[in-house]
Amino acid sequence: MTKKLRAGILGATGTVGQRFAELLADHPWFEITALAASERSTGKQFREACSWKLVSPMPEALKELTVRDLKPDLDCDFVFSSLPNDMAGPVEEAFALAGYPVISNSSSHRLDVDVPLLVPEISYAHCDLIPVQKARRGYDRGYIVTNPNCSTMAVILPLAALDRDFGVEGVVTTTLQAVSGAGYPGVASMDIVDNVVPYIGGEEEKMEAEARKILGRLQGESVEYAPFILAAHCNRVNVMDGHLATVSVKLKKPATREDVIASMRGYVSVPQELKLPSAPVSPIVVREEIDRPQPRLDRETERGMACVVGRVRKCPLFDFKFVALGHNTIRGAAGGAILNAELLRAKGYL
Amino acid sequence: MTKKLRAGILGATGTVGQRFAELLADHPWFEITALAASERSTGKQFREACSWKLVSPMPEALKELTVRDLKPDLDCDFVFSSLPNDMAGPVEEAFALAGYPVISNSSSHRLDVDVPLLVPEISYAHCDLIPVQKARRGYDRGYIVTNPNCSTMAVILPLAALDRDFGVEGVVTTTLQAVSGAGYPGVASMDIVDNVVPYIGGEEEKMEAEARKILGRLQGESVEYAPFILAAHCNRVNVMDGHLATVSVKLKKPATREDVIASMRGYVSVPQELKLPSAPVSPIVVREEIDRPQPRLDRETERGMACVVGRVRKCPLFDFKFVALGHNTIRGAAGGAILNAELLRAKGYL
Amino acid sequence: MTKKLRAGILGATGTVGQRFAELLADHPWFEITALAASERSTGKQFREACSWKLVSPMPEALKELTVRDLKPDLDCDFVFSSLPNDMAGPVEEAFALAGYPVISNSSSHRLDVDVPLLVPEISYAHCDLIPVQKARRGYDRGYIVTNPNCSTMAVILPLAALDRDFGVEGVVTTTLQAVSGAGYPGVASMDIVDNVVPYIGGEEEKMEAEARKILGRLQGESVEYAPFILAAHCNRVNVMDGHLATVSVKLKKPATREDVIASMRGYVSVPQELKLPSAPVSPIVVREEIDRPQPRLDRETERGMACVVGRVRKCPLFDFKFVALGHNTIRGAAGGAILNAELLRAKGYL
Amino acid sequence: MTKKLRAGILGATGTVGQRFAELLADHPWFEITALAASERSTGKQFREACSWKLVSPMPEALKELTVRDLKPDLDCDFVFSSLPNDMAGPVEEAFALAGYPVISNSSSHRLDVDVPLLVPEISYAHCDLIPVQKARRGYDRGYIVTNPNCSTMAVILPLAALDRDFGVEGVVTTTLQAVSGAGYPGVASMDIVDNVVPYIGGEEEKMEAEARKILGRLQGESVEYAPFILAAHCNRVNVMDGHLATVSVKLKKPATREDVIASMRGYVSVPQELKLPSAPVSPIVVREEIDRPQPRLDRETERGMACVVGRVRKCPLFDFKFVALGHNTIRGAAGGAILNAELLRAKGYL
Repeated sequence: MTKKLRAGILGATGTVGQRFAELLADHPWFEITALAASERSTGKQFREACSWKLVSPMPEALKELTVRDLKPDLDCDFVFSSLPNDMAGPVEEAFALAGYPVISNSSSHRLDVDVPLLVPEISYAHCDLIPVQKARRGYDRGYIVTNPNCSTMAVILPLAALDRDFGVEGVVTTTLQAVSGAGYPGVASMDIVDNVVPYIGGEEEKMEAEARKILGRLQGESVEYAPFILAAHCNRVNVMDGHLATVSVKLKKPATREDVIASMRGYVSVPQELKLPSAPVSPIVVREEIDRPQPRLDRETERGMACVVGRVRKCPLFDFKFVALGHNTIRGAAGGAILNAELLRAKGYL
Repeated sequence: MTKKLRAGILGATGTVGQRFAELLADHPWFEITALAASERSTGKQFREACSWKLVSPMPEALKELTVRDLKPDLDCDFVFSSLPNDMAGPVEEAFALAGYPVISNSSSHRLDVDVPLLVPEISYAHCDLIPVQKARRGYDRGYIVTNPNCSTMAVILPLAALDRDFGVEGVVTTTLQAVSGAGYPGVASMDIVDNVVPYIGGEEEKMEAEARKILGRLQGESVEYAPFILAAHCNRVNVMDGHLATVSVKLKKPATREDVIASMRGYVSVPQELKLPSAPVSPIVVREEIDRPQPRLDRETERGMACVVGRVRKCPLFDFKFVALGHNTIRGAAGGAILNAELLRAKGYL
Repeated sequence: MTKKLRAGILGATGTVGQRFAELLADHPWFEITALAASERSTGKQFREACSWKLVSPMPEALKELTVRDLKPDLDCDFVFSSLPNDMAGPVEEAFALAGYPVISNSSSHRLDVDVPLLVPEISYAHCDLIPVQKARRGYDRGYIVTNPNCSTMAVILPLAALDRDFGVEGVVTTTLQAVSGAGYPGVASMDIVDNVVPYIGGEEEKMEAEARKILGRLQGESVEYAPFILAAHCNRVNVMDGHLATVSVKLKKPATREDVIASMRGYVSVPQELKLPSAPVSPIVVREEIDRPQPRLDRETERGMACVVGRVRKCPLFDFKFVALGHNTIRGAAGGAILNAELLRAKGYL
Repeated sequence: MTKKLRAGILGATGTVGQRFAELLADHPWFEITALAASERSTGKQFREACSWKLVSPMPEALKELTVRDLKPDLDCDFVFSSLPNDMAGPVEEAFALAGYPVISNSSSHRLDVDVPLLVPEISYAHCDLIPVQKARRGYDRGYIVTNPNCSTMAVILPLAALDRDFGVEGVVTTTLQAVSGAGYPGVASMDIVDNVVPYIGGEEEKMEAEARKILGRLQGESVEYAPFILAAHCNRVNVMDGHLATVSVKLKKPATREDVIASMRGYVSVPQELKLPSAPVSPIVVREEIDRPQPRLDRETERGMACVVGRVRKCPLFDFKFVALGHNTIRGAAGGAILNAELLRAKGYL
């Protein structure tokens, strides 16, 4: 891998687009060579087009790059997409048709029957849908791969560990989601100061379906959804970054608290074996303190790429309760997509 | 009821003590004639002893009242207690033994077998434990009655409606609790700015036990706990007042969404029939907007005495999901205790 | 005043428009008979057009009123305007020309030489500009009157008291302004969680000019600006309602701390003498506690119509330092405009 | 400098103590060999004694170190002190008398006539007070050196630049200070949610005196305070880290906006020349965006060691207005003290 692959970013000026820019600034395998966004930004330099909202400064190399429009003639080998869901569908298809692999963070194609919903530790085998997709859609070099919604990502790694070791039968989860998950300007401050908003449009449905697809098995040319049921309650809280979730889980096989913790801590998988550059050493970090994880203190764990779990304890109704935390704009968005691209590169799809 | 009963407040300087002072300022049946608190405050005027944290000003009539110590020789007919849980136990017993009815918001005696855990709309019949308690403990005029924890109170009214009409079989609930629930100074700002604390000591155990006692049936000289199981996940969020809870509930009998809403809206009970002064007209207010209830906008509903429910919808795992909101220092603390006193007055116990 | 005047609201669906609706719900002199807003809302019922963000519920009487467009054929005797500054200019002129007195909260016409910038306690005499304005602009029954910006209003009452009694020579003020001042959606939560934004477009210039006009003297057909200089630093902070300001003031005549406090406390004026319905009994409430005023605790003082002052103390550089607080959407916006209308009614202009 | 100096930390478990631990974890010149704190922590391992509140994890090397009491028999070459002000005075003197150089962040000795109040870019020459102090107090190897209060530090670097180049004649400053400045538990969440507290005990007096001492000239055996006057208004706002200040400054010589910015940007001094390990490359970073600096986005500039300035503009009353931001627990506390120790090491005092 001597030469870096050239990446474009669709939706470069948004919250997740900025995270792509930050996380790819010194990436060993990829370099950003094209930025594209909606009309409002087209033709401007990135420094002008983008209201940068991250603590780390805008990468120097991107400041003077001109933002292009969303047409599939970008100077790059593949694209990351963080387009708004209402735009992503046709634009991503156009890029795939034009020969660009599209590594998407948008929800438009996640549940398409021939599109992998990829979490490299869990659903790596779903990459085999790529040739199916190409054949079915008449794509040549291009294809679409997606990563899950940030709220799904906050809970899916521990559920995968438990499902592998004990079988998951049912899940009730309540999320306490950060404002950055809604993009910028996103959540109005008048809605969140001294307040909680107990509703996020479409979020519960996404979690309930995506979790089952990710844990599903590839059967021939499609994924058979995992047979458990997940019930989600999604809330917006006054936190900048980091989605926290409470989880009650019913298992198929008996397990002790120690078994559950060992299952999570022992969960390493393909990205760790392949030593993908963005892979967390420990995908699931289990803490023992009585009051952790907390978004402000724990969201940066493993550079925002791990799921942090705490308060593993018996549930009087189901089998276990625990708390999970994921960084919504890193592992839950840009970082997750980059890890997907790394897996695809390692597997020869990129 | 021509003459007002004279009430004392134990723990008068605290967050809940202040709410007692505020809510009793113009009460038609009760007047505050004694304030008592721990040593630090004893002997001072209330205006000096109390760091007043409410938006409404300190009642004029109390400003120059001298704060007494916690000995049972106060000049009043009964006492409200909002003592810290580690002090409440023996102090409340001493007052009861000395002949004072004790209407307590503390947790110390809530689960005592001979102490009513009183929510006037639900467990009014548990008042019959009072003579049992007197006989067993050798109290003469005095006795102890308690109201539930603020987090329990946030969900118990809709659960009672559903239990009455369809039978509750299981509940998973996650709370998003306000900082005022921890008193003053309580939660450190460094713990809650840009953060959630997914742990409140003892809170989950309280909810899991109290809900079953309140919905339990008086059988002879004790309460038989209701047979359902409730699993609670308790969290502190960056909100001043108002505990929000997500609820997934499994019912014994089939019900439609309309049935569930009608059950909640139709839930009126003894305090409404008796027209107790602090009783909400509608104990459960069901809202139809997609994103309500919200703490900042809805906590003052029915002067903070109602439970506000929203987002009633099917649960893919259980039967129904909904969101509930209660004002933690009004209905969940001082206001709840005052309603208890009103019921006891109306029933002749005061 | 047996019959209520019929008022229309321009910009009815916005944050300030909602405050007009709330504050006029039971007004003794005025009743709302028309609501108007921009195209997006036109033709809808108010309940549908307006995303209500106040704690008090939407007045029943308005829920089914149809929102009209911004053309001057509303069924009312005069209008309140809370239009965005970029729309207010021509729309308000059209209404005035069509015969409607326009009581405006927008900034468009505040500094027009023939438009009163009215604070009834201070610049009541500027009403005499109304006939000048009518003559100059060819208005018949209509005219435009404005109230100051919410940040100006937070400091102007104590400055007026000091100017009357000692003469103000210079002022340095820093504001800490609430998010509701930017309307809805207004300030993005990503900009204000764990943050301060030390810039509000145009705000400093408004304060620096408006304060001098309000304290200026009517000389013939225009207002001679007061000769002092005010330097403003405007900041947005994580507060829902209530603009706080620190003030260092240089006086022309010597004064003791007691003189300053007495000057502020003794400042009653025309609205108090006329007992206007919305007039605060004490326009300036001076508190003695070391750490007040605070937005959350003090913004509702005198139903949000007073300026609350605290921490009056010597300034090592100028003469005095103090802290001032005003409710930005009540006295600083809708409530201020209503008080203006009441003054105009009492003076026979309405 | 082949061998690292061994440092002790007095007040190791507090907010600033934790920053010392974090910042010294990989320091090239110093290593922590002793931790001391008040009785409550004595005898425990650091991991148990300290409620760690930083995002970075507790350094492994310290976890099992036993916390010692505050007696001057620690195994180290010198001590950093972040003791509470009410304890620091006698403890620091005892350590100095016993031969330990004391690099203190506490306020107790800052204004002592023979104690340097050291900002290495500004008052480096005040180190010459050390022999005076030793002689006067009978210290042998030990002495006390202090750094300024976090609020003073937020504004002192730009004032020093302007004073050097144009002469400062007067300053009015208003601070918007972070909650971490009050330590842990410090500010109660009930005081800061949806609120501002316009008072911080002693803070204004500290700024007003310290600024003049730091910019003062060493004359013989004491520092002659700089002759300008600074007026401070100090406020606590809902921000985790980073003190922001608005500044109006009157200069002795005329200057253009470009002059002022050039003066600040060009301000490099002894720590930069000596390339001290913790020295910021640019002590003052001037930003041109209209709405910066902002605490959340800019506090980490130069690893929290720089002052970030923005909005340099003409002041209608004085000469210039600007906004300054400093990281209160890094440059304003632990980082500032470490830079002091580095200067003292480079100058041969350590």
